[in-house]
Amino acid sequence: MFEYVERRVLRFHKNGDPREVLQMEKEKFQFKLEEGQVLIRWLCSPINPLDINIVQGVYAIQRELPAIGGSEAAGRVVKTHANSTLKQGDLVFPFISMSPNCWTDYSVANEDQLVKVDSRIDPLMASTFSVNPCTAWQMLRNFVEMNAGDWIIQNSANSGVGRSVIQLAKAWGIHSINIVRDRANIEKLKIELKHIGATHVFTEEEFAKNGRTFVREIVQNTHGGTVKLAFNGVGGRSCLAIAGALARGGTLITYGGMSKKAHEFSTAQLVFNDIRVRGIANGMWLMEGGHEEIVERMLKDLQELAVLGKLTPPPLDYHKIEDFKIAIENSMDGKHGKQMFIFEKATDSGFTSSPTSFSSLSPNSSFSEFPNGSSTSAFYPYQPIEVEVYAQTVDAEPQKRRSKRRSANRGKYNGQIGRPPKYLTNLITVDVETQMNRHKHTDDVLRKRRQKLALETCRRKKDQDIQVIV
Amino acid sequence: MFEYVERRVLRFHKNGDPREVLQMEKEKFQFKLEEGQVLIRWLCSPINPLDINIVQGVYAIQRELPAIGGSEAAGRVVKTHANSTLKQGDLVFPFISMSPNCWTDYSVANEDQLVKVDSRIDPLMASTFSVNPCTAWQMLRNFVEMNAGDWIIQNSANSGVGRSVIQLAKAWGIHSINIVRDRANIEKLKIELKHIGATHVFTEEEFAKNGRTFVREIVQNTHGGTVKLAFNGVGGRSCLAIAGALARGGTLITYGGMSKKAHEFSTAQLVFNDIRVRGIANGMWLMEGGHEEIVERMLKDLQELAVLGKLTPPPLDYHKIEDFKIAIENSMDGKHGKQMFIFEKATDSGFTSSPTSFSSLSPNSSFSEFPNGSSTSAFYPYQPIEVEVYAQTVDAEPQKRRSKRRSANRGKYNGQIGRPPKYLTNLITVDVETQMNRHKHTDDVLRKRRQKLALETCRRKKDQDIQVIV
Repeated sequence: MFEYVERRVLRFHKNGDPREVLQMEKEKFQFKLEEGQVLIRWLCSPINPLDINIVQGVYAIQRELPAIGGSEAAGRVVKTHANSTLKQGDLVFPFISMSPNCWTDYSVANEDQLVKVDSRIDPLMASTFSVNPCTAWQMLRNFVEMNAGDWIIQNSANSGVGRSVIQLAKAWGIHSINIVRDRANIEKLKIELKHIGATHVFTEEEFAKNGRTFVREIVQNTHGGTVKLAFNGVGGRSCLAIAGALARGGTLITYGGMSKKAHEFSTAQLVFNDIRVRGIANGMWLMEGGHEEIVERMLKDLQELAVLGKLTPPPLDYHKIEDFKIAIENSMDGKHGKQMFIFEKATDSGFTSSPTSFSSLSPNSSFSEFPNGSSTSAFYPYQPIEVEVYAQTVDAEPQKRRSKRRSANRGKYNGQIGRPPKYLTNLITVDVETQMNRHKHTDDVLRKRRQKLALETCRRKKDQDIQVIV
Repeated sequence: MFEYVERRVLRFHKNGDPREVLQMEKEKFQFKLEEGQVLIRWLCSPINPLDINIVQGVYAIQRELPAIGGSEAAGRVVKTHANSTLKQGDLVFPFISMSPNCWTDYSVANEDQLVKVDSRIDPLMASTFSVNPCTAWQMLRNFVEMNAGDWIIQNSANSGVGRSVIQLAKAWGIHSINIVRDRANIEKLKIELKHIGATHVFTEEEFAKNGRTFVREIVQNTHGGTVKLAFNGVGGRSCLAIAGALARGGTLITYGGMSKKAHEFSTAQLVFNDIRVRGIANGMWLMEGGHEEIVERMLKDLQELAVLGKLTPPPLDYHKIEDFKIAIENSMDGKHGKQMFIFEKATDSGFTSSPTSFSSLSPNSSFSEFPNGSSTSAFYPYQPIEVEVYAQTVDAEPQKRRSKRRSANRGKYNGQIGRPPKYLTNLITVDVETQMNRHKHTDDVLRKRRQKLALETCRRKKDQDIQVIV
């Protein structure tokens, strides 16, 4: 017996410019769960450079056409096969699969290609788990033995991978030298990256000018350390610059080539300084198989850090699936943060009838995890947690201020999807600056407070029953 | 008690352009052998790019000034300390030392920085042992497990390292794809490289055009092989080209950067094809220490191959030490083969008196190993052996023709130092072409003949007494 759900999909029938070949289709999705399969209701899914490349047809592995876009997402299990190890309501993300078909409301997925997420972790975090944090984890753990007190250097420090590297390095006591492109609000960005754990942040120009002295004076002489690893997501001369900071025998790992220029190394770096160059493609590495033990350790590590609030998603722009053209455009112009699709309940999106196959579930209840402000569920805890942390240190009456901001937040998000309101972003930055510059709170104090609050929030969440209503 | 010898030295008192800062000095060299030291009479010493860099002061390790140039040489032990493990007459080359001071007639050296050479090996070969063949050996043996039937690719195939790679690969049954720059006599060069063992030779343009198809059709489909290693002595786009031929997970090793351009790699090569990039500086690796076992195996391997005639020096231009300006100029203009200093007996070179400290040796006898044609000693067997080999296959009366060429050779070299006479070089090429194209002799037949002859020559040499007369 087949069942069906109505769903929207972002599909491409041929490879090409995603702004042209992607189209949104509404369809009745007929399915029959085989053993080991589950039906997933996707909650959110980001746009990664990888996803753009897949639509363009320039990624190493191509999808069979027509194909649904997307490779990362978080979703709830809404229907399982009789013998399933997952159960209804489990939060999952797709893993070890190049075709999770997640730019849609519903998919059927194989259980063994899904990771069940610790229920205390936010879906937004879960939906950005499998590419950037995993890449960062592997680069820090899988090539060279790194110990607390060691140093790494990276370009593209503000990218998704870059931010994950900063957070993981910080959590493990590894110092990071971070290179970013110069921009109008550079000081704000530096504060932000230092706040999530960066030891030092330089623009490319600053590092070109002072990098050599810095590595000699600060890293070697003051700290007695060496730069053992370099992470390169840019290529061209930027690659040359960070390779030059490596100690003899150091390793440079390339995970991307944003500049679209060849990755450059000097003869002195390779021949005399004996640096080693490697590349990493997380997805291909996973698909190769045979790394089960490492993968298990990696996912455990990352989830623990996410629960403690030490691993968070990068800044996100939210979009309805209908606004995919804007989202894709933003993702491709390189001037925006990560673009995130939020899949509201299908009935909100022009379907005349609700999905009909789950008679046991109430089809007319509103979908409780959508961030429309009408619920206090797990779906949107990230930004409020951060705001609460920042507010606490500058506020004489934290309880009152916190509730004020919550209601502001609630009003603003009601029925809207987009960036958090401007005044909120500003507030965060002001608070961070206040803490770091005026009150001279150390990173450590901040970290402990953030941790305590995250744990409290997690405990609160755990007590709630998870409602899954399709 | 001190002793002295009179010697000529090529010395630089400051770093700079070798054509300007190098100068020839004549001096009384006073010495006293400590335990573990010997006095060496150098026979010949090549000019390596490394030597140029050292004089310029741009090499990773700098010499204390004033310094004597040179890093490779072959010499005879002429005086030993009482407890020496070496004995008078031993043929040696300097090893594991950045300052062997070998652009001179005599040096004092530490025994543990000298390698005693199999007496059947030609001094010209011995003097080019420690840089190029050792680099080639390490690249083929020390990074990736290579088996007979595997493939390597290299640029700069006509360089000293490139030729050693070709010969070692051939000896071990490894196929080599060799890239050279286009030139007027390209077909002659291709034949020459194939003759010493190259499987395929392409110009850079040919490989850019057909390389991808070649690797797919010939290497993969016809031979079922993969290119596991790439050797890069050039940099720039040439590096990109050979890196592109590597199989997934293949390794590229850089040993030089002749183009003076940064070494380039694409994102696809590093990230999707998982290629690994390494560098090698033979000298620094040796000085690091701790590789005794590998070094011993390497030197044994290389000497065995040299005795069998499977490892030979590259084409050489010979120079008196007085003509060092021409030699250095030739070495730096990139249009000539390897430049080799031949140190004649000191008395030939303007000294009024002979070295006086070795009363037991006859100072007025001519130095028997100098290639002036007046002796049939070990010093100049390389070119004649090759000629004899080639002659045998096209000659109805090999014995007669061989003796004819010998006398021609003898006349030409009498008292002169320089390239082998033009007609001889031409003859070699004609003969090789004849063999390979007209008579369709396979490489294998040629190899066996060459081997047999080399062995015979070696046996002859072994019976001779080595004369050492300073």
